[in-house]
Amino acid sequence: IRIGLGYDSHRFADDRRLVVGGVQVPDARGLAGHSDGDAVCHAVTDAVLGAAGLGDVGGLFPDTDPAWKDADSLVLLRDAFSRVAAAGWHLGNLDVVVICHRPKIGPIAGPMRASLAEALGSTPDRISVKGKTPEGTSAIEDAMIVHAVALLDRG
Amino acid sequence: IRIGLGYDSHRFADDRRLVVGGVQVPDARGLAGHSDGDAVCHAVTDAVLGAAGLGDVGGLFPDTDPAWKDADSLVLLRDAFSRVAAAGWHLGNLDVVVICHRPKIGPIAGPMRASLAEALGSTPDRISVKGKTPEGTSAIEDAMIVHAVALLDRG
Amino acid sequence: IRIGLGYDSHRFADDRRLVVGGVQVPDARGLAGHSDGDAVCHAVTDAVLGAAGLGDVGGLFPDTDPAWKDADSLVLLRDAFSRVAAAGWHLGNLDVVVICHRPKIGPIAGPMRASLAEALGSTPDRISVKGKTPEGTSAIEDAMIVHAVALLDRG
Ligand SMILES: [Mg+2]
Ligand SMILES: [Mg+2]
Ligand SMILES: [Mg+2]
Repeated sequence: IRIGLGYDSHRFADDRRLVVGGVQVPDARGLAGHSDGDAVCHAVTDAVLGAAGLGDVGGLFPDTDPAWKDADSLVLLRDAFSRVAAAGWHLGNLDVVVICHRPKIGPIAGPMRASLAEALGSTPDRISVKGKTPEGTSAIEDAMIVHAVALLDRG
Repeated sequence: IRIGLGYDSHRFADDRRLVVGGVQVPDARGLAGHSDGDAVCHAVTDAVLGAAGLGDVGGLFPDTDPAWKDADSLVLLRDAFSRVAAAGWHLGNLDVVVICHRPKIGPIAGPMRASLAEALGSTPDRISVKGKTPEGTSAIEDAMIVHAVALLDRG
Repeated sequence: IRIGLGYDSHRFADDRRLVVGGVQVPDARGLAGHSDGDAVCHAVTDAVLGAAGLGDVGGLFPDTDPAWKDADSLVLLRDAFSRVAAAGWHLGNLDVVVICHRPKIGPIAGPMRASLAEALGSTPDRISVKGKTPEGTSAIEDAMIVHAVALLDRG
């Protein structure tokens, strides 16, 4: 059994579509980033790679590589998890905290759990996505901050 | 076995009593919030709910609901954990990091471990509460930030 | 089995050598602090102490104690982990996230994993160190922020 920790942060930006946890959110400002800016997928990717000791998202998919420009981060997560699975691990469970003012996370937690479960070869009951607002405790509130923990199991 | 992650942040405010981890701290500024502002209880509630895949504190006890105005967050934690226990889980262990300038966490860690243990049907030896100061790395230092991880076990 | 969570933050400072995860990084600004300012070692120390329920780095090695002035934090980690081991625990695995602009974490992750493994009586394959940049989401970017999770096992 292994645990992993993921973190990511992106600022919101104009003229970007919002994709979080692989879910497109209409009528919302998107996130800046070399890829699609999906901070949830990036944090989850780091959590499962870290648990398996297989590096991190920045090493596998460098943001200096034109190949990942505007990349679909759910595809990157699927690719990363295939390496984790090839090393003999499967997902025990995943818990994610998303800190932002908007969008509200509750209404999109279900679709995110479904898309993350699919990418991780798991089921939504083993995936949790929870939302928090910054409550005036951050100087840069126009951002999304994501923390994730993952448990991997073998056999 | 399942792991969960909790996070919460509240700003300090005048004319509020300080309650952290269910412990009243005399002669200290309190925390803003719809409930009693107990950021430790809120982060711990999210950690155990997240591990069990049972949602989050904002979904169960919305801060738009007058029922939770000035609520005792230790009661909310006990309520949330009863759902976790009803799903067949018990607490393996809990580790909490509290980031703030004041109060000093060391002297109140013992009482917090006792009150959290009681709410979680566990014992203080399975509960850890650690303090850190922001060390000038946050722009908004007049706040309490809490991170928590929980391990749940079955059988 | 037990899980622990560690967090630390230090500002960069002039006229300090940079030591992270026990690794000296030449030609880089160092971190402010009473000890050598090794935020990675401090967060890892708190993660393993928290998992074992044995307190925290601030309690064991107070920054008001002249004994720890400019202390080698890898030595403190080794000392702390000897208490964890004496309580019957060994490291399952450790995952660390280091958030900073500089230094780049990828090139020094290998040496950090080796030094942390040695201090924790483990092997580098059970240690992961991942880097992130703040991406403009923090007001105080001239700092290093570290999050760590540890899994302890018995028998
Ligand atoms: Mg990212
Ligand atoms: Mg709260
Ligand atoms: Mg420190």
